[in-house]
Amino acid sequence: MKQTVRIATTALLAAVIAAVTAPVATANPAAPARPDFVLPAAEPFDAAAVPAYSGDHNAVYAHIDANLEQHLANIQRWLRQPSISALDIGVRDMAEMVRSDLEGMGFQETAIVETDGHPGVWGFYDAGAERTLMLYLMYDVQPVDEEDWQSPPFAANLVEHELGKVLMARGATNQKGPQRALLNAIESIIAVDGTLPVNLMITAEGEEELGSPHYPQIIDQYEDRLSTADGVIFPFNSQAPDGGASLNLGVKGILYFEAEASGGDWGGPRAAEIHGSYKAIVDSPVWRLVQGLSTLVSEDGNTILVPGYYDSVRPPTAEEASLIAGLLATHDDDRLKDTFKVGRWIDGMSGEEVLRNLIYTPTLNIDGLYGGYTGEGVKTILPHMATAKLDSRLPVGLDPDEAFGRIRAHLDAKGYEDIVLRKLSSYPASQTSVHTPLVQAVIGVFNKHGATPTVNPRLAGSAPFYQFTERLGLPMVPTGFGFGTGAHAPNEFMLIEPAPGVGAAGLAAIEKAYVDMLYALAAPDRGE
Amino acid sequence: MKQTVRIATTALLAAVIAAVTAPVATANPAAPARPDFVLPAAEPFDAAAVPAYSGDHNAVYAHIDANLEQHLANIQRWLRQPSISALDIGVRDMAEMVRSDLEGMGFQETAIVETDGHPGVWGFYDAGAERTLMLYLMYDVQPVDEEDWQSPPFAANLVEHELGKVLMARGATNQKGPQRALLNAIESIIAVDGTLPVNLMITAEGEEELGSPHYPQIIDQYEDRLSTADGVIFPFNSQAPDGGASLNLGVKGILYFEAEASGGDWGGPRAAEIHGSYKAIVDSPVWRLVQGLSTLVSEDGNTILVPGYYDSVRPPTAEEASLIAGLLATHDDDRLKDTFKVGRWIDGMSGEEVLRNLIYTPTLNIDGLYGGYTGEGVKTILPHMATAKLDSRLPVGLDPDEAFGRIRAHLDAKGYEDIVLRKLSSYPASQTSVHTPLVQAVIGVFNKHGATPTVNPRLAGSAPFYQFTERLGLPMVPTGFGFGTGAHAPNEFMLIEPAPGVGAAGLAAIEKAYVDMLYALAAPDRGE
Repeated sequence: MKQTVRIATTALLAAVIAAVTAPVATANPAAPARPDFVLPAAEPFDAAAVPAYSGDHNAVYAHIDANLEQHLANIQRWLRQPSISALDIGVRDMAEMVRSDLEGMGFQETAIVETDGHPGVWGFYDAGAERTLMLYLMYDVQPVDEEDWQSPPFAANLVEHELGKVLMARGATNQKGPQRALLNAIESIIAVDGTLPVNLMITAEGEEELGSPHYPQIIDQYEDRLSTADGVIFPFNSQAPDGGASLNLGVKGILYFEAEASGGDWGGPRAAEIHGSYKAIVDSPVWRLVQGLSTLVSEDGNTILVPGYYDSVRPPTAEEASLIAGLLATHDDDRLKDTFKVGRWIDGMSGEEVLRNLIYTPTLNIDGLYGGYTGEGVKTILPHMATAKLDSRLPVGLDPDEAFGRIRAHLDAKGYEDIVLRKLSSYPASQTSVHTPLVQAVIGVFNKHGATPTVNPRLAGSAPFYQFTERLGLPMVPTGFGFGTGAHAPNEFMLIEPAPGVGAAGLAAIEKAYVDMLYALAAPDRGE
Repeated sequence: MKQTVRIATTALLAAVIAAVTAPVATANPAAPARPDFVLPAAEPFDAAAVPAYSGDHNAVYAHIDANLEQHLANIQRWLRQPSISALDIGVRDMAEMVRSDLEGMGFQETAIVETDGHPGVWGFYDAGAERTLMLYLMYDVQPVDEEDWQSPPFAANLVEHELGKVLMARGATNQKGPQRALLNAIESIIAVDGTLPVNLMITAEGEEELGSPHYPQIIDQYEDRLSTADGVIFPFNSQAPDGGASLNLGVKGILYFEAEASGGDWGGPRAAEIHGSYKAIVDSPVWRLVQGLSTLVSEDGNTILVPGYYDSVRPPTAEEASLIAGLLATHDDDRLKDTFKVGRWIDGMSGEEVLRNLIYTPTLNIDGLYGGYTGEGVKTILPHMATAKLDSRLPVGLDPDEAFGRIRAHLDAKGYEDIVLRKLSSYPASQTSVHTPLVQAVIGVFNKHGATPTVNPRLAGSAPFYQFTERLGLPMVPTGFGFGTGAHAPNEFMLIEPAPGVGAAGLAAIEKAYVDMLYALAAPDRGE
């Protein structure tokens, strides 16, 4: 496989890059500076230069077209089985539905995988192939407020929408729809060819919506076999309505914790709030939290003052610099600001600096803050405790345990030993290279269908994909054609039959693209 | 009237004073210092040296004893009429009950006084006397949770208690019980003497439990006449169960306000929370609030760093120094710490320093703090706003508008013009001198009955008594014999018939003491 990087030379791109690499004045010159993650010189990555996948699997495509009604019914069957992990509704029934579907498709091994939480599902299809693809699936969904839905969330009705016919249901796009579409594609290949071009290892969990607390236990039971796979795909509707697709090759890690101050030996009321007038002689745990928190960041809230916090961040690579330069072609500060209703980015940054900060800068964010009386009007108390919920997004290189330890040590050094820190969740970043056969094959399939994706080296957000990339050592990418929206919200849907002029793929095209991906992964050089 | 201050010379007192006037090391030597409100040299005030009131009004006392059952019934009638201002339950009916009682007692003027809120009640009894006493009454009560009461809150049953027979009801001690007891005393004097020794002006409000928002409108309508009175009494069960009484001559003022940061031109999301990972490029209103608040006080949260905040505090007077020295005899740091479950006072202060801070030090307290996600577990958002509720207790001299203006100017100077401050409530301190005829007469009556009170120059807490002292220019004191507890809580009661060995007065003794007070106020020199 060639790892081509095409040189983009349009005047537009050059101008943009020149503009954004000029130094940006900070709003507060006295504030300590965040490190500047300087990008090595690099030519913009151009996904369009990856050779399009050239295979055609017309017999399989015809099978999909002939069986599309049944394929849609398969998705509806999954959607009509509620599987709300947070409320323990239908979870085990859904696990069994996934398992028995795999068994029915010819998987030689299927199993319900017990964990300390909801069970997982294991499936192995031995095609006797050279390469093995791991599929990560989730079979649980978010809770629903039924009265907010225009079509009942577990009815899985086809609904007319301005984009076309859509399948409306909880889980339609997050994540049952694209997942069952991929299984439909797999069924079709087996029906036509008698086997698959790659071996498949499937791990499905029923707790993704809870933060995947027990997914590592599922990996535990198949770790030796999973680590022999060649890559991992998470089926995902990655197109916008206009057909534009994006490919995200990594995520930041996260450290989520609570910081709590309460009365103790240092002072303040230990047991309960007291009358506010006694502030004249009694220390305040709320002020203590405010002052302790204030030492963590610069006056503008944007530079982390915890010593060494930025030290372990792995500097930008040439590959990332190339991807970022490529991203700039489609990056639009104004559109993003409008989406978030934000008037200006930090320090008035723009363009490449925005992308660099999203990808490289560790954050320290207050997600929530509470203490004392939070109702309307006047109540005068000196509260005995106050709590902040914080998250830190961790670029590649900054380990969550290291981050947590540094924050603790900083508070201790500042004299805030009494502020309790409770870690609620943490995992490191995850990164896959654009040069891996997996990613090149995926891009090749997108290019075949004229949907060259925007390739983002790493999201500012987090997902526990380190299980694949760090633990199993596999490249991993969430991908797939198709469009859906409304995850975690009412009226979630997946586009099934696009209206004329809508660029995103419909169900048949989605399944055909998955077919192409499996063949492309089996023989990645075939398309070049 | 002599304004005697007896010199207390016990070895105990001298030792206590010597101990507490030694310098106290601060915990954080780098913190800016609060001003030290140095007390002028003064001998401890001794209330026992005020001559006991020597009048005896046996015919009136006998009338009280003979009519005690009816007097109790009068209180019960008031208590059985709910008057919950917050829920607008029975408020106007209660106002009319107060008015018609006054009319029935022979008040020449009575009126329902309309305001923009619940109505007040006016009453004037012209005794043709030289002196005029103003009575401040409140006829509203707090809401109730009926299921928490051992006797229904509006049944006003007599209940057996370890302290004796108690009258249990919402409003029993706060404030209908002591108020109707005073009116019982007034009825008895009129019944026996045909008139009163003083003229009476009564203003009653139905919104005390709401913070007296419209009480100034009641004053408005009678201001010229009220300002000719000689003093104000607020009927109050001021005894402890053991009979010890306390007299509070003043209160601090208060400024209660909210400080709120939200996204705007400076940065941050304007309309709604956004995903927490965007902290890498988006400013945080929560951090902005934390950093803005942190500039208001020293690192230990105890010294207000707003320039000039302490400047207007009126320095201690010789009178106050004398009262504080007297207070030290009964001040008990350990007992107070135990009450509040506080391990140490600010900077390890004790004794006189505690009293001085309670009386003179302006406070800045965070009553509540909230923003973003405050539930359990993990939710990662960058909130678009955060709010703190703060109160500042204002000693004599520090005006609430001045305080508010200084805080605003400080935040502006620090660059936090965008943090919105909303004033919810404010009024200045109130102070009455121990040397006024009103207070001397009250202490004389306590001394007559062997219940010499502890005299506190000023509470750390607040009440809008400035209406009397600052606006009308009258001395004012909440006072009365008797014990009650449970204000704002279930099972509120007032002690009616003390068990043997209980020192607090019962209903008959309470009323007789009020009789003495009215006569003593009429001719304050008579007892000396």
